[in-house]
Amino acid sequence: MKNIEDFKKKAKNWFKILRNKICSDIESIERNSKSSNQIFKKKKWYRNNKDNKSGGGEMALLRGEVFEKAGVNISTVYGNLSKELVGKIPGTEKNPSFWASGISLVIHPKSPSIPAVHMNTRFIVTEKFWFGGGADITPINKKSKASINLAKLFHNSLKKVCENYKKGSYQKYKKWCDDYFYLPHRKETRGLGGIFYDNLNSGNWERDFDFTKNVGDNFIETYKEIVKLSIKTPCTQKDFSMQLERRSRYTEFNLLYDRGTKFGLLTNGNIEAIFMSLPPSASW
Amino acid sequence: MKNIEDFKKKAKNWFKILRNKICSDIESIERNSKSSNQIFKKKKWYRNNKDNKSGGGEMALLRGEVFEKAGVNISTVYGNLSKELVGKIPGTEKNPSFWASGISLVIHPKSPSIPAVHMNTRFIVTEKFWFGGGADITPINKKSKASINLAKLFHNSLKKVCENYKKGSYQKYKKWCDDYFYLPHRKETRGLGGIFYDNLNSGNWERDFDFTKNVGDNFIETYKEIVKLSIKTPCTQKDFSMQLERRSRYTEFNLLYDRGTKFGLLTNGNIEAIFMSLPPSASW
Repeated sequence: MKNIEDFKKKAKNWFKILRNKICSDIESIERNSKSSNQIFKKKKWYRNNKDNKSGGGEMALLRGEVFEKAGVNISTVYGNLSKELVGKIPGTEKNPSFWASGISLVIHPKSPSIPAVHMNTRFIVTEKFWFGGGADITPINKKSKASINLAKLFHNSLKKVCENYKKGSYQKYKKWCDDYFYLPHRKETRGLGGIFYDNLNSGNWERDFDFTKNVGDNFIETYKEIVKLSIKTPCTQKDFSMQLERRSRYTEFNLLYDRGTKFGLLTNGNIEAIFMSLPPSASW
Repeated sequence: MKNIEDFKKKAKNWFKILRNKICSDIESIERNSKSSNQIFKKKKWYRNNKDNKSGGGEMALLRGEVFEKAGVNISTVYGNLSKELVGKIPGTEKNPSFWASGISLVIHPKSPSIPAVHMNTRFIVTEKFWFGGGADITPINKKSKASINLAKLFHNSLKKVCENYKKGSYQKYKKWCDDYFYLPHRKETRGLGGIFYDNLNSGNWERDFDFTKNVGDNFIETYKEIVKLSIKTPCTQKDFSMQLERRSRYTEFNLLYDRGTKFGLLTNGNIEAIFMSLPPSASW
């Protein structure tokens, strides 16, 4: 692991670069399409008290006219895992120390015609090291032709990124995503899927890093295209009711099943950052 | 356990009588104070398919002008516990068979001045048998003088019921409630408390049954009084924002921690009935 400090630095820097790009692109859509001057409000947090001894992160939250709620978090946390988690994460069987850096984003647009999206990539270091992440799309009306077409565009762009990295990886990561974002009590998926990958270490760090960078870059470029294609589609009252329902199920998934939420709550994470993924409205 | 079939029948009948009384009282408040003709819509469900071989229940849901969402469920379910639950419930160490009957109610009023409430009582039979239940109040503004006074009225009525049953029981059941309805990630209670009891079997079934009946009767009489005292209190926009926040935390508690929700999801319960407790709106 002679290069590990270099890897950490490069990964951490990248997540911040990507965060800045995403925030700037989202703000620019707000400004150009609705003359909204809403910008991301950033807020730093630390895992312990007010110092940086075990890391922390920076939240960025925008509540706008196009994007009713968009949260983009970056964090770099480190220390020793709590007893509940030791051994459950690869490379911590003999040594509880960990280092994790990543970006996590959820966007809930105001218009039910624009799909909600989630993207997260991370680099984890224990006695092993690997990348993980994914991106998935949640149109409000999962069955409409327009939604299915937007999802196809999203999937095809991910397929290109995956297949460029490794032949056959797309099918594997797509299935992983469908299996993960599933609500057993509803017998339905959270949205229309995307990709999910974890424990990625091919032995060529630069290549794996490039893949993770491409997932992020591709995500924001494709989402901008999706917003452009759907922002002018008119919505009915029924679409807004359906949005409330879809958002409720999004909440059910995140609170009942999501690993990231559970990990955050168990590691004494920042509540505001953890719950940034939850929708701006829901109804049961 | 020679009288057990008689006990089951009496308990099950009582929960239905109480359900009918509560629904009728809630409908009458709707009619008299807002000229609303909303009534409870009832819906039967069965645990397995469409037959009654392992029991089921009846939901009753009203979406009204005073009570934005009021759900009153009764159910009687029986059979063998799933592997995950065997041994975790008293009297199932050697025998997985169980029988459970109960009533469960959650009311989310439209006005932020009227507190939300929850009440649940149940009779469980395994190789042992016992009562359980409780009632708790969730005013929107937990710190306002009006809320504190309404909560006092609620607590005092419960105290009377408990102390009539057994000296000292109120403090015990009150603490149990405060400990149970707690959100560790927020470091706050769900509402302003009430009582919570479980595994209640004093050796005198009739007495324990009377106590459980009194909890139910007292609940609805006291809540009617609370509604009368708060229904005319004017609300500001800030109160409605606070209501959304309180409801979001109610959702967090129910999805992250509530035993009843987890039990329901693990025993393949009816999703509509389980989630009837969730609020009609929430925002993050």
